[in-house]
Amino acid sequence: MAEQVSQRGSSSGPFTSGLVQVFTGDGKGKTTAALGAAIRALGHGLRVCIVFFMKGDYPYGECAILSQLPNVNIVRSGSPGFIDPTNIKPEQKEQARQALAAAREAVSSGSYDLVVLDEVNLAVAWNLVELDEVIKLISHKPRNVELILTGRKADTRLIQLADVVTEMLKIKHPYDEGVKARRGIEY
Amino acid sequence: MAEQVSQRGSSSGPFTSGLVQVFTGDGKGKTTAALGAAIRALGHGLRVCIVFFMKGDYPYGECAILSQLPNVNIVRSGSPGFIDPTNIKPEQKEQARQALAAAREAVSSGSYDLVVLDEVNLAVAWNLVELDEVIKLISHKPRNVELILTGRKADTRLIQLADVVTEMLKIKHPYDEGVKARRGIEY
Repeated sequence: MAEQVSQRGSSSGPFTSGLVQVFTGDGKGKTTAALGAAIRALGHGLRVCIVFFMKGDYPYGECAILSQLPNVNIVRSGSPGFIDPTNIKPEQKEQARQALAAAREAVSSGSYDLVVLDEVNLAVAWNLVELDEVIKLISHKPRNVELILTGRKADTRLIQLADVVTEMLKIKHPYDEGVKARRGIEY
Repeated sequence: MAEQVSQRGSSSGPFTSGLVQVFTGDGKGKTTAALGAAIRALGHGLRVCIVFFMKGDYPYGECAILSQLPNVNIVRSGSPGFIDPTNIKPEQKEQARQALAAAREAVSSGSYDLVVLDEVNLAVAWNLVELDEVIKLISHKPRNVELILTGRKADTRLIQLADVVTEMLKIKHPYDEGVKARRGIEY
């Protein structure tokens, strides 16, 4: 075990042993941290795939910029508008299933060094995708692929499987005082 | 007060009242969250300035990519190598002072919608820059500029001044198990 750990990061390729990272918690910065990680990786000539599980066709500014960069592939799934976790519709489940299939393909294809599964934690928590399917995806991940899972309510089993887990903790947030989401900042 | 709050974010321009955001804590994702926020803003055609307070000429991949994008200006300060907080050198203080001057200019120039002060929290904690100078910068910030401060050990007074505060909490980190920083991921 110690040997396996010491091999990580010490090789010439950055991802001879890619890690599994989780960004969770109620605070800001989960998706943006993953996007920043994508930028960092792209800056080193690595290949990145970002699968958005629950963003639909929301006009996310970052997609516009990221799409211009080489070596990045963006997969967007999910209906426009918010999902009601107490009333998941069949088409929403189907969209999440397609996103997971795209994620599985991206991870196993050998075409990407970093794969981001944005909001997959919440998709699991809301039963849009099966926890076991995500666990299987992680378990079958080729050794050289880095994986980032974002979203609130990360399942304990995903946290156990991950190498790096960060909780974004909300200390202060203007939504609490009635400030609306602002274009270019929150979305 | 309620009126001031309700005006925020409800106008046609995204930053009629830009907020002050703080990303702090020991966990991963503080700088990357700020970079992701920059990408998001750039995607909406906003103008971004990122001032790195303690990055020196470290080969940060993200700088390479960000520099290619329009509407972004990057200011890098700090010596290469790590800073020993118990032995701050005069040139390190001078570099931090220059970074703060650049930040002040970026904030007040009217040329940027979003200004990121990367690692400024730690620069304050280590007495590389004066807390009062950062407070003054925040207090004199034009209303339409969004400001993001990152770094561990954010001072209580900065947290009090900020509108949004997120603590990146380290739940699990491979450094704890001896994994080295990896090119393209941690830097």
